Amino acid sequence: MAVAYDGAIQQLIDDFARLPGIGPKGAQRIAFYLLGVDRQEAQELADAIMTVKDKVRFCEICGNVCETSPCPICEDPRRDRSVICVVEEPKDVMSIERTREYRGLYHVLGGAIDPMSNVGPGDLRIPELLGRLKSDQVTEVILALDPNIEGEATTTYLARLLGPLDITVTRLASGLPVGSDLEYADEVTLGRAITGRRGV
Amino acid sequence: MAVAYDGAIQQLIDDFARLPGIGPKGAQRIAFYLLGVDRQEAQELADAIMTVKDKVRFCEICGNVCETSPCPICEDPRRDRSVICVVEEPKDVMSIERTREYRGLYHVLGGAIDPMSNVGPGDLRIPELLGRLKSDQVTEVILALDPNIEGEATTTYLARLLGPLDITVTRLASGLPVGSDLEYADEVTLGRAITGRRGV
Repeated sequence: MAVAYDGAIQQLIDDFARLPGIGPKGAQRIAFYLLGVDRQEAQELADAIMTVKDKVRFCEICGNVCETSPCPICEDPRRDRSVICVVEEPKDVMSIERTREYRGLYHVLGGAIDPMSNVGPGDLRIPELLGRLKSDQVTEVILALDPNIEGEATTTYLARLLGPLDITVTRLASGLPVGSDLEYADEVTLGRAITGRRGV
Repeated sequence: MAVAYDGAIQQLIDDFARLPGIGPKGAQRIAFYLLGVDRQEAQELADAIMTVKDKVRFCEICGNVCETSPCPICEDPRRDRSVICVVEEPKDVMSIERTREYRGLYHVLGGAIDPMSNVGPGDLRIPELLGRLKSDQVTEVILALDPNIEGEATTTYLARLLGPLDITVTRLASGLPVGSDLEYADEVTLGRAITGRRGV
């Protein structure tokens, strides 16, 4: 007796269930939703997936996601080029942009030091960061990593690495709940954390 | 100052956020996940969406989703053709199949009577059900609608409609939590409900 759907719809359910945050029931609900929408809307979603794979790249300077490299933030003449905010992921750039408290540049590391997942300093975009600091322009580096164990380890590592340089190294103010992800902080809390950043 | 992502990725986030059960944060998480997977896997998801739109249709007999019409259940010679189980949606067929308690046929109504959403008996596949009952084969109809207000209304409506016919009309045993959706019942509970079905 059949306990799975016919080929195509089960395939779609399986593919959706593989995405983060979607379980089998949620995937089934989405599959039947897509079965019900008109062809145009389904095509739009399918196209959006492939457009992202084809058009989105990483900025050669800051490592943020963008469609043109250098990205619009690195190219923007109104941004303060004396400050670089170091974050783990591109989505953290967006979280900080939403606070409207920061007008400097960014540097995306591409993760945090995490020995459990075999991520060491060599896997992060640290040499690129040091390269950017060689110019005289940069006077401050803000370490805006997630306030969890991996983020703290990376903050400590970078603080020691940047200590000998003639650059002010700061970190986000406490106020963010410890153990959480920066991505999920609300704008006001994250904004206050940026304003109240302190020396490492 | 930009507060949205560059075109393509924001488009993908918006498209995912439109799906049921996915909020803006979840959509962002999925978009970055897809950005990270290899092109092949993204292509597979995009293709699966369009394959479902192109290949999946509704069975001309029972109204279930399938790739061939009549569907494999309606065509299966081992199924008991004297019993028809009436459900609201194709996903309910799958829920009942998973219990392995039922070997008869199905009839998918395509919803339930719901005056608040302007769904009346005329919007459901009730004439098709009556057409199937004209053959002498069917001796029992099991009304397996969701145990909520709309499902109860539809059960009552169908029980009155089928009353004059020389057919046993049953409904799922109580045991299902009232006010919930049939789709979310666990296999054991739903299986017991089928075994213990009672006359209306």
